[in-house]
Amino acid sequence: MKKIDVCPTPELLHLYRLTGKIVVVVDIFRATSCMTTAFAHGVAKIIPVAQLDECRALQKQGLIAAAERDARKAEGFDLDNSPFSYMNPELIGQTIAVTTTNGTLAITKSIEADQVLIGSFLNKKTIVDYLHFMPNDVLIVCAGWKGKINLEDMLFAGAVVCSLKNDFFVEDDSALSALMIYEAAKFNMIKFIANSSHVRRLHGLGLIRDIEFCLREDVYDVLPVLENGILVKMKTVK
Amino acid sequence: MKKIDVCPTPELLHLYRLTGKIVVVVDIFRATSCMTTAFAHGVAKIIPVAQLDECRALQKQGLIAAAERDARKAEGFDLDNSPFSYMNPELIGQTIAVTTTNGTLAITKSIEADQVLIGSFLNKKTIVDYLHFMPNDVLIVCAGWKGKINLEDMLFAGAVVCSLKNDFFVEDDSALSALMIYEAAKFNMIKFIANSSHVRRLHGLGLIRDIEFCLREDVYDVLPVLENGILVKMKTVK
Repeated sequence: MKKIDVCPTPELLHLYRLTGKIVVVVDIFRATSCMTTAFAHGVAKIIPVAQLDECRALQKQGLIAAAERDARKAEGFDLDNSPFSYMNPELIGQTIAVTTTNGTLAITKSIEADQVLIGSFLNKKTIVDYLHFMPNDVLIVCAGWKGKINLEDMLFAGAVVCSLKNDFFVEDDSALSALMIYEAAKFNMIKFIANSSHVRRLHGLGLIRDIEFCLREDVYDVLPVLENGILVKMKTVK
Repeated sequence: MKKIDVCPTPELLHLYRLTGKIVVVVDIFRATSCMTTAFAHGVAKIIPVAQLDECRALQKQGLIAAAERDARKAEGFDLDNSPFSYMNPELIGQTIAVTTTNGTLAITKSIEADQVLIGSFLNKKTIVDYLHFMPNDVLIVCAGWKGKINLEDMLFAGAVVCSLKNDFFVEDDSALSALMIYEAAKFNMIKFIANSSHVRRLHGLGLIRDIEFCLREDVYDVLPVLENGILVKMKTVK
């Protein structure tokens, strides 16, 4: 039986084996929701980088550059970290370099896995269907917030575990915790995460529209996958 | 308003500020349940040490030594990690050196806090009453399992957060996660944690009696506290 585990923050990633696994990186507010939206709206490639300097260097080479730190756009960059910014027709076919506080670090730390996917509520069903289809064990890597756990990423992890639990062995207590959180919250996720630290942070920045959008399920049928350090839309789905 | 946070594993402790706080270390299966039981049954002092070597050195100096690794008694030591082993009248007034896989490491990593207490379901009410009374912010430090989260420690953390949430600000998403887990599980904790990794591990070793005992609430009115690296029973309670 295939196994599914949840790594609740990249700070604990060294405790998990990545080899042979499909890793799904999740940063609901908002990096992986943005990436999903970007590919659904025609962006060709996304280069995730952990540091602002790397992102700036790629910008100087002519790429569109998106950078977020502490939930705000970092100065001097082209795009922020709102999914609505990625619905722009001018981005169709483009390559974007992206760095965010938590999400891109989670991606760059996961490269030893057999395959790294980008997950969000927006493409949850596509992710789940693919994981059902593939023979690999699965590890959901939550981006968290500066090394700590956050509720919305655990909620997504729990949603995936819930969808897969009949066909996968749920060994890990983090996965069981995520499942319990999702089952408590699933009928009204917005209400349940209203008190989460990051929702309060985003509320303070007037980003309630982003929050609501990032919690919508199964909006896009895209599967972003890391290939040689660059995210592209997987072509083999369906 | 006082704040309460939860550190879900000692592996994340560097992300939390300890100064000024009361830390409650919890390792439900079974270190902190054993310590609570030991003090309730007359043990005078417990010296928690992180390494087997340190524990062996204290044994050579004439102390009673308890050592657990991977849920079993380590070879050559006097006591294992079952609460029933600490109900022995021969231990009254004695000093015991203890090392366990997770619990004692969580204690030794927490020494920068203003005060370090030992919590378990067995002395939960005593812990909660004391935290209500004191002016300090609180951090529950879950011992986890080899760096990873475990369900039973999160369950206890959630139980404490639940008891304090009207008088404390619950800022941290780990604390909210713990609270959600506890609220889902509180009416039948044994059933809810039956699938947890550590319960499966203990079941495999025939330790079901320990599991049931460690989930009993408010059995002992003792408050173990760390003083100069040594655990003693706090004298000022009630």
